[in-house]
Amino acid sequence: MGEFDLIARYFQRPARRASLGIGDDCAIMRVPSDMELAISTDLLVEGRHFLNTVNPEHLGHKSLAVNLSDLAACGAMPWGFTLSLALPRVDERWLEGFSQGLFALADEHQIELVGGDTTQGPLTIGITIWGLVPPGQALVRHGAQPGDDIYVSGTLGDARLALEVFRGHASLDAEDWAAMRLRMDKPTPRIALGLALRGVASAAIDLSDGLVGDLGHVLKRSHVGATLNTDWIDTAQGLSAPVAALPWSQRLEWVLSGGDDYELLFTAHADHRAEVQEAAMSVGVPVTHIGRIERELGLRVMDRNGEPLSRRFQSFDHFA
Amino acid sequence: MGEFDLIARYFQRPARRASLGIGDDCAIMRVPSDMELAISTDLLVEGRHFLNTVNPEHLGHKSLAVNLSDLAACGAMPWGFTLSLALPRVDERWLEGFSQGLFALADEHQIELVGGDTTQGPLTIGITIWGLVPPGQALVRHGAQPGDDIYVSGTLGDARLALEVFRGHASLDAEDWAAMRLRMDKPTPRIALGLALRGVASAAIDLSDGLVGDLGHVLKRSHVGATLNTDWIDTAQGLSAPVAALPWSQRLEWVLSGGDDYELLFTAHADHRAEVQEAAMSVGVPVTHIGRIERELGLRVMDRNGEPLSRRFQSFDHFA
Repeated sequence: MGEFDLIARYFQRPARRASLGIGDDCAIMRVPSDMELAISTDLLVEGRHFLNTVNPEHLGHKSLAVNLSDLAACGAMPWGFTLSLALPRVDERWLEGFSQGLFALADEHQIELVGGDTTQGPLTIGITIWGLVPPGQALVRHGAQPGDDIYVSGTLGDARLALEVFRGHASLDAEDWAAMRLRMDKPTPRIALGLALRGVASAAIDLSDGLVGDLGHVLKRSHVGATLNTDWIDTAQGLSAPVAALPWSQRLEWVLSGGDDYELLFTAHADHRAEVQEAAMSVGVPVTHIGRIERELGLRVMDRNGEPLSRRFQSFDHFA
Repeated sequence: MGEFDLIARYFQRPARRASLGIGDDCAIMRVPSDMELAISTDLLVEGRHFLNTVNPEHLGHKSLAVNLSDLAACGAMPWGFTLSLALPRVDERWLEGFSQGLFALADEHQIELVGGDTTQGPLTIGITIWGLVPPGQALVRHGAQPGDDIYVSGTLGDARLALEVFRGHASLDAEDWAAMRLRMDKPTPRIALGLALRGVASAAIDLSDGLVGDLGHVLKRSHVGATLNTDWIDTAQGLSAPVAALPWSQRLEWVLSGGDDYELLFTAHADHRAEVQEAAMSVGVPVTHIGRIERELGLRVMDRNGEPLSRRFQSFDHFA
């Protein structure tokens, strides 16, 4: 199968929003005149972001999910995306699974693949995604203010626990393993929550590199500091049952610097506590209050008793 | 140097058009309400699209140029782009050169880098680009009509000649080698010509895989055939001096299926001959009339005397 047959068979679908879709030099697409574009891009490399043993359907899902998660963090409504694929060879079973996983999630969020590029090379997946947001309403990293509450959505540490089971550093029964593995392989982008938080949250970021590191980006861009509590890591709220069952030290590490959570971290004025909970309830995603933004720069992590923790937590850096 | 320092040092510049640029989950950018988006994406892989001996400044230029060339083929005005980079290691000299080449061309076309992704991996460059085009005015592949003239811009075969010198299959004196090598390494995207052809050309495509193959895409999408003349390959017009000096058979091959030309192939109604030449003159890029669109499907290549050529010409396919 050649390059053009491959595209036609696995990736070309009738254009809906685009007035010109796959198969020309460019795709052509209108943007509603009262909206701004929110654009993000991610590159996933085999051996770095995923292993060659990954289920291709899950990989198709995850490749789009990590990009949708960026739109969620901006409160943007998904609109279109492009896909670039470098493939070592044409493997029809792989392409079948990958495209199914990709399009299932695309359909769920009514987002359209409008173009792409396919070439021979080490397995690499590049997606550029864009969404729509009313002018001035995007959630941004630099909006956190002293006094704001800090929240996270969903449960943290699940993907890290799955990774550690995979590495042989932890073990789970079959049911928990399946659940944690799905959290690693098929993360759920928090699009609906991001939309519900417009006008409520003062800043937001999606958690991909670990809570401590990603909170650090918000603090740096907002020129503020924070106190991060850990008492919530000692309760069932904000944790899945398998993570809640871990020994404290491991739980602390994997929740605070786990990576691959794809939950939202956001801040909101203390006056907005009711609106935050309403937004969370309206979309069925729990959120947990985990700390407070402060004028004093730096991040102060407290132990379960409210005493400062001296331990340091790592964040993921591709070249560190 | 870590991932975030690398981005700050080499790729982060003050946002101009974007209301939010590099450093957040998404970039935020307005689209003028009377314009449509034209979007394209390309993935360049070391060993496939370029060699590891390439000058990084030229590679920065070329990575953006091949994307701009897609916008040119649609008659779109460049607006913004994202850059994804997988790098085997942090090589500051490489990054310095690459970013200089990239931004020099970006500035020339007043296009803004608004976001990206950087990771460790086999050297891979992914760019997604978008431009603006008034609704309904994009140049498309499917608009060619029986009776239309077929044109190419600039000179063809230069990049292929440089490649063959590189492979040891041809030789040139130092001056010609330098000129042909620049045509391969630093192609000039025909943005101004694409804009000038709006309302004049009936169909357009940029030449990346070779004239015969790329014309084939236009014919297929337009449900038409064509007669392609080769007498123009026997004159100085439409050829650079080093290509014009090649033996006929080689010249024919490298002009018709050279690849990496990044010139525009377009069609226009015969009534528009004066407008085509005016558009070409207005932007200082010569165009050559090379054939005619016909109702009968298929491509008929004529020899210098107007007799059908039986020889077949290859087009580039990444998986063939």
